[in-house]
Amino acid sequence: MTSQLSQKGEAWSARFSEPVSDLVKRYTASVFFDNRLALFDIQGSLAHAEMLQAQGIISAADHAEIQRGMAQIKGEIEAGSFEWLLDLEDVHLNIEKRLTELVGDAGKRLHTGRSRNDQVATDIRLYVRAAIDDITKLLHGLRGALVDLAERHADTIMPGFTHMQVAQPITFGHHMLAYVEMFGRDAERMQDARRRVNRLPLGAAALAGTTFPIDRERVARTLGFDDVCHNSLDAVSDRDFAIEFCAASALVMTHISRMSEELIIWMSPRVGFIDIADRFCTGSSIMPQKKNPDVPELARGKTGRVYGHLTALLTLMKGQPLAYNKDNQEDKEPLFDTVDTVVDTLRIFADMAGGITVKPDAMRSAALQGYATATDLADYLVKKGLPFRDAHEAVARAVRACDDARCDLAEMSLDQLRAFSPLVGDDVFAVLTLEGSVAARDHVGGTAPNQVRAAIARVRAQLATQPGN
Amino acid sequence: MTSQLSQKGEAWSARFSEPVSDLVKRYTASVFFDNRLALFDIQGSLAHAEMLQAQGIISAADHAEIQRGMAQIKGEIEAGSFEWLLDLEDVHLNIEKRLTELVGDAGKRLHTGRSRNDQVATDIRLYVRAAIDDITKLLHGLRGALVDLAERHADTIMPGFTHMQVAQPITFGHHMLAYVEMFGRDAERMQDARRRVNRLPLGAAALAGTTFPIDRERVARTLGFDDVCHNSLDAVSDRDFAIEFCAASALVMTHISRMSEELIIWMSPRVGFIDIADRFCTGSSIMPQKKNPDVPELARGKTGRVYGHLTALLTLMKGQPLAYNKDNQEDKEPLFDTVDTVVDTLRIFADMAGGITVKPDAMRSAALQGYATATDLADYLVKKGLPFRDAHEAVARAVRACDDARCDLAEMSLDQLRAFSPLVGDDVFAVLTLEGSVAARDHVGGTAPNQVRAAIARVRAQLATQPGN
Amino acid sequence: MTSQLSQKGEAWSARFSEPVSDLVKRYTASVFFDNRLALFDIQGSLAHAEMLQAQGIISAADHAEIQRGMAQIKGEIEAGSFEWLLDLEDVHLNIEKRLTELVGDAGKRLHTGRSRNDQVATDIRLYVRAAIDDITKLLHGLRGALVDLAERHADTIMPGFTHMQVAQPITFGHHMLAYVEMFGRDAERMQDARRRVNRLPLGAAALAGTTFPIDRERVARTLGFDDVCHNSLDAVSDRDFAIEFCAASALVMTHISRMSEELIIWMSPRVGFIDIADRFCTGSSIMPQKKNPDVPELARGKTGRVYGHLTALLTLMKGQPLAYNKDNQEDKEPLFDTVDTVVDTLRIFADMAGGITVKPDAMRSAALQGYATATDLADYLVKKGLPFRDAHEAVARAVRACDDARCDLAEMSLDQLRAFSPLVGDDVFAVLTLEGSVAARDHVGGTAPNQVRAAIARVRAQLATQPGN
Amino acid sequence: MTSQLSQKGEAWSARFSEPVSDLVKRYTASVFFDNRLALFDIQGSLAHAEMLQAQGIISAADHAEIQRGMAQIKGEIEAGSFEWLLDLEDVHLNIEKRLTELVGDAGKRLHTGRSRNDQVATDIRLYVRAAIDDITKLLHGLRGALVDLAERHADTIMPGFTHMQVAQPITFGHHMLAYVEMFGRDAERMQDARRRVNRLPLGAAALAGTTFPIDRERVARTLGFDDVCHNSLDAVSDRDFAIEFCAASALVMTHISRMSEELIIWMSPRVGFIDIADRFCTGSSIMPQKKNPDVPELARGKTGRVYGHLTALLTLMKGQPLAYNKDNQEDKEPLFDTVDTVVDTLRIFADMAGGITVKPDAMRSAALQGYATATDLADYLVKKGLPFRDAHEAVARAVRACDDARCDLAEMSLDQLRAFSPLVGDDVFAVLTLEGSVAARDHVGGTAPNQVRAAIARVRAQLATQPGN
Repeated sequence: MTSQLSQKGEAWSARFSEPVSDLVKRYTASVFFDNRLALFDIQGSLAHAEMLQAQGIISAADHAEIQRGMAQIKGEIEAGSFEWLLDLEDVHLNIEKRLTELVGDAGKRLHTGRSRNDQVATDIRLYVRAAIDDITKLLHGLRGALVDLAERHADTIMPGFTHMQVAQPITFGHHMLAYVEMFGRDAERMQDARRRVNRLPLGAAALAGTTFPIDRERVARTLGFDDVCHNSLDAVSDRDFAIEFCAASALVMTHISRMSEELIIWMSPRVGFIDIADRFCTGSSIMPQKKNPDVPELARGKTGRVYGHLTALLTLMKGQPLAYNKDNQEDKEPLFDTVDTVVDTLRIFADMAGGITVKPDAMRSAALQGYATATDLADYLVKKGLPFRDAHEAVARAVRACDDARCDLAEMSLDQLRAFSPLVGDDVFAVLTLEGSVAARDHVGGTAPNQVRAAIARVRAQLATQPGN
Repeated sequence: MTSQLSQKGEAWSARFSEPVSDLVKRYTASVFFDNRLALFDIQGSLAHAEMLQAQGIISAADHAEIQRGMAQIKGEIEAGSFEWLLDLEDVHLNIEKRLTELVGDAGKRLHTGRSRNDQVATDIRLYVRAAIDDITKLLHGLRGALVDLAERHADTIMPGFTHMQVAQPITFGHHMLAYVEMFGRDAERMQDARRRVNRLPLGAAALAGTTFPIDRERVARTLGFDDVCHNSLDAVSDRDFAIEFCAASALVMTHISRMSEELIIWMSPRVGFIDIADRFCTGSSIMPQKKNPDVPELARGKTGRVYGHLTALLTLMKGQPLAYNKDNQEDKEPLFDTVDTVVDTLRIFADMAGGITVKPDAMRSAALQGYATATDLADYLVKKGLPFRDAHEAVARAVRACDDARCDLAEMSLDQLRAFSPLVGDDVFAVLTLEGSVAARDHVGGTAPNQVRAAIARVRAQLATQPGN
Repeated sequence: MTSQLSQKGEAWSARFSEPVSDLVKRYTASVFFDNRLALFDIQGSLAHAEMLQAQGIISAADHAEIQRGMAQIKGEIEAGSFEWLLDLEDVHLNIEKRLTELVGDAGKRLHTGRSRNDQVATDIRLYVRAAIDDITKLLHGLRGALVDLAERHADTIMPGFTHMQVAQPITFGHHMLAYVEMFGRDAERMQDARRRVNRLPLGAAALAGTTFPIDRERVARTLGFDDVCHNSLDAVSDRDFAIEFCAASALVMTHISRMSEELIIWMSPRVGFIDIADRFCTGSSIMPQKKNPDVPELARGKTGRVYGHLTALLTLMKGQPLAYNKDNQEDKEPLFDTVDTVVDTLRIFADMAGGITVKPDAMRSAALQGYATATDLADYLVKKGLPFRDAHEAVARAVRACDDARCDLAEMSLDQLRAFSPLVGDDVFAVLTLEGSVAARDHVGGTAPNQVRAAIARVRAQLATQPGN
Repeated sequence: MTSQLSQKGEAWSARFSEPVSDLVKRYTASVFFDNRLALFDIQGSLAHAEMLQAQGIISAADHAEIQRGMAQIKGEIEAGSFEWLLDLEDVHLNIEKRLTELVGDAGKRLHTGRSRNDQVATDIRLYVRAAIDDITKLLHGLRGALVDLAERHADTIMPGFTHMQVAQPITFGHHMLAYVEMFGRDAERMQDARRRVNRLPLGAAALAGTTFPIDRERVARTLGFDDVCHNSLDAVSDRDFAIEFCAASALVMTHISRMSEELIIWMSPRVGFIDIADRFCTGSSIMPQKKNPDVPELARGKTGRVYGHLTALLTLMKGQPLAYNKDNQEDKEPLFDTVDTVVDTLRIFADMAGGITVKPDAMRSAALQGYATATDLADYLVKKGLPFRDAHEAVARAVRACDDARCDLAEMSLDQLRAFSPLVGDDVFAVLTLEGSVAARDHVGGTAPNQVRAAIARVRAQLATQPGN
């Protein structure tokens, strides 16, 4: 009897009278991108076969043959000698066809009680689960690198900006810890998404389940899934997990883009707060003097790519009727590219954190521009009894006078300051220094160096308990 | 002494020499949309004032005055008599100005140790937390309504579709449970997001913390937050939680769009599987016979709106340097409209679930088109010993013969069927019935009626333990 | 006989047995946002009625009555006394109902030969056409303001940046003209979109045309449309024009976001290239010294909003079957908000261009950092006969030596420079000045002041021929 | 003297002390995707060299050498023997390095007066221009195929749907022409975008122009550009044209998604309006009877991909300061994939149009469901003198009576019909037939068969004048 797969190049199955054209083949085939799932596909097939045998649906001999064939195929794939055929459409049929070549009828029995619909859903979930585990480790690696940088600069004063205007003095260590918090939330989101990824669709078959006496919980245990998908229609059509993963990735890239923006501005000569090691920079084909922060610029640009993939997946699923439609084949490329982008970017940023040279003098001189301690003066007046709103107004007038006189608040005389409020005493000058201002913000989350050190200790304790640490 | 807020219409503060123009005022003001946050703003201010007093930063008398003033303001807002002024820019300054009118200097002391940057971040988090709680309840309400519908139709057979082609028979109850799973995941995601929403930014002040001896954990407890934000720069600039909420909402709408698409197709006369109660439909201004499923159509359209708001927020945050920038004012309208859209849609869908009339005859007759039991025949051959791939091919040939003869598989004679495989026996006809096919998919997640009933019981047990049930 | 519209609050038409619920009414009604189309709706109705009468479909008396009624309604709307009713769903039914109250049966005859489907499509096109005309004028206004600014600074030297690193000296006038080019393309795109907006859908009726002997070209002429839509199904379902308009608007906002980013960075004290007039800035609720560039920040944030609306509309139309579906009601709010955002932003930016104070000293001193004339030195060597790639390498070594010696290229001695290439002569110092560098880029599009002036003249000539100038 | 490019693997230029790491190399290199631009890069370089020689900037001998070298490189690329090196970053440096190997110093002179910034901008514009020309032809090809299909079915009656409910009878030819209109607008938009693509950035050099006496207009003429970019900063940083092209492509895919949705629904067995040739369909790995419309499903899914690329490019450009930043390297992959997707999809759809088999009986029987001629009855009453709104209401009552009696309007007796309006006469039955209804919509854009034929003739005349026809 002629097998279905042996003639796919001619017509899809005996039901079809005409083969697909070459253009259609290329348009509809996925093998040249979904072969990335190959090892997950084999892993899923082996777990399925083990269950089929345990349930008496296939024989022990068939099971052994399938194991033997799959071991060889895995070897061929890892060696790069496996031949992927366009005519066989996708990773699943390519592997199954090769299996049947190698082990005959046992191979033809592997697909019993399953469909490509639940098979591919299983493969992608295994893939995304592995990606989440990688990314979580990379996020913690980046956090660790930033914490090290923060520790070296727990006392390094720089201007804190709001609206890109000098606001109040902060420490560079404190600034770095803001990103440590962001990437910490990213890791949390990845782990939350993992719970919804880690459910087994296999057993849903095409859409309705199967007539064979399968044991889905057994397969779930073998593959390390926490649970099974509880509705077969949903199991084959659900791509929530891919969207949720891409949304979490979009936030990772949002944070990367913010950090990149700051690194680029800080390295601009007029600002000059930092330098980035040569190995993360390139030059110009025309301007011999240029040293460009290529890595953060490119990372900022790659944000668009990940936002775009999220948009693509949401659009893909909008208005799709149940259960499986071919549209869903389009889930893979955006997903794969999102994983590649986030993995590469996080790895390179963790490395780059160690290549940032801070220039404390430039930071300090910038902090002395822009009346960074004006709030401290207002707080001083409040502590002397003035309501905050009145204090705010008094200081605003003082700042305007400084602006006219082109001097800083700390450069005014006691008499000049008393002109704006009689509450000012000679203890005022201590609150107008950068060190005094920073040290005074001494509560959880504040920029005082001892708070920065406490926050570092807290994050290190967190990281020590992370899986994969 | 002139207070800052009393002259804002003239110039921003004493530091400014020129007032903003009317166009700029309108362009930059947020009061006409952020007054929706008013009660959350008051709640946050009261918790802040309570802490200020407990820490000895303001007096008990000032605290009492603030409480008295805020009680009156709350009453005015609830009565609709509060006058919102464009000149006062936003909800925060409007309320603070009124408070100062009512209680004098005590009002001017409220802003001690905080900034609008941490104040607005707190308000929005309180708002999103409340929205998440509402939406979670509505999701469970919709799930309950769909479970009831599923129970009424646990045995009602319809064709299951893949690629919009008849695939295998399923039950309508099973189909409805697919949506119950989707909305269940949505509720999980909302709860995961809630954990990251429910952290207190207050105390971060403008960006660096404050010089006053504040107790952030106390404020967190008062307001029911699980934790404080651990970095002040991050606290004022973070809008992750809004993006994560909108991403979770986008998935809710994705599911709504899929369900809507199906309802619309099912109500199309050529399909005719269901009718939707008149109260969810409208007619045509020109065609007197029309009854249109307006609600699912509009809900499908509103998916775009929520996707768009997610795009808006991601774009907003891309590349923003720390800490707070005015850009962030643009977080509110997309967020508010997302909440309104999701809340209204879920409420109306829960109601509409009860207004769906199923037409079992149309479903059954459709299930008899398209060889829905072909897989059952293949499985039958496998159980007789044929490898699955060979069975698949044999049945494909049988289907093609039926197609030519314009009959169903069950209408062929035993001899005709045996022509495709000698393994066919007279027990074959039992597996070719719709009831036999459905009942045979009898494992967790399968479409067999008893599995559908088990799934219903499982969901009901879940729902019984939900908060707000 | 009972008219349809008089009982809509009870049931949609005689075909319906149950009224829509209050929630459904609110969910499906559009009157509270589409009443913005009211005057366009009346304009379209009057043109339709005029044609009906000219074709003998309604009587001259009916036509006169409709004109009389519409004149009164227009007055009521302009006076704010028109009462919009939720029960009447949308702007169209509200106006038609009022017309029938005012003029009786003539009003009931207005809807002859049309449907709300083609009516609303006509209204929106009239609205978008007017918006395009406004926006085009505003774009030219902004271009004019930037050209004026450029002219004042055709000789003001600043550093040109690539990768935020100092690249080569340019003039501020030249920099401003880059935006003049961008906004010029925006105006072109708006005009191109206008051609596709300006086609008449009226006459398509519900979807198939009408049985009345209408004259669509006559209506097109009356309303100033260039053509009629040539397929009735397409006419009622097409929202391309709204998407194209939003895509063009997204590019306007992209340009605004780039200009805003630069203004914000330039106003940051460490850069200090410009100041923005107080009337476009606000202060801080906590930091008395702050002056924040609110307008460009907010405009940068509003970019997200317009990108989001484009996403919303694309999502809306994805996969919609023909002809009209209720989904399309969702086209309006994104469109209206896009128009408002773009109109307000362009108006305010044109005004703000006049409020930018340039600080030439800061620009000049920045241009002297970063070896801005290194390319000039390389070009000098090429002109002496060295291949460009070798010249590039020689100058790179010279820059590195300057970096070590902390001096500029122009500060090196002739001997020092000759160490990098024997081709250097004493004419080299002229090419190392900022003025020499700028003046030497003297070709179309280059930064030489006379080229900047030529470009200004070119744009002014363009603007002089614009409609609405 | 050591040339810059010969040692790039070690350090970027003599200015750099440390080479980039392998990860950074891979992260920042573009050669593995931008080598698609190779032939455009050579074309641009040749035009540049020709001008350099004409202007006396390089010698005729150098020019000849460059031409010789480039001819050989072109041959190597076309033969697949060109070796692309990661160390050389991108297509430009790879080609320039090879040129210098082949022709020595002449190769090092090619980059005189230009930079990679204007070079890559030129390459991409040449690429997009070619893509637009291809896509325009493909759009016209698809229009032609749909017009042929429309002509075969100018008289084939089907139900016209609004809200997926039967609205009025139309012809299948008329329905196809709706798509002909959409794809016609797409072609217009492509041509409009082409005007803005077809401007020459070369000569902008890095950002400011060059000190060499170049002739940009000459290069523009050589390369077939309509104009030069008039501002050098804008020339190197502008990616509007890529965004505009992707926005136009997103609309192409919107139309494809709508057509796909309809084809899929029409091929669903319950609807059964069409069949699609086997060569555009595939089967199921589990269900032997399945024939799935893979091509339209996949095309519908690919809509997301193109929307995503548009989002990516808009995000990329948001907030980017002038002039060139490395972010812009991210413009290519979204652009390339958009071109591939649109080109493949259009080609396959034009082919598939010829593979659609229409089933007129199924269409006709569907048109008889749902009171498709109710509007005709209302129009009939209006022509007898009843105001439209009253006629609408009378027919709504008749429809409800039919619904109760389970009959069509045409099946009622004259007396029954007269019960709803005494104006009904025995001429009513002619207007209640499908043929009568369709033929009566006889005006420009209407569904009457002679209007369909006129529209076909109009489009064919258009197509005959298209370039590339």
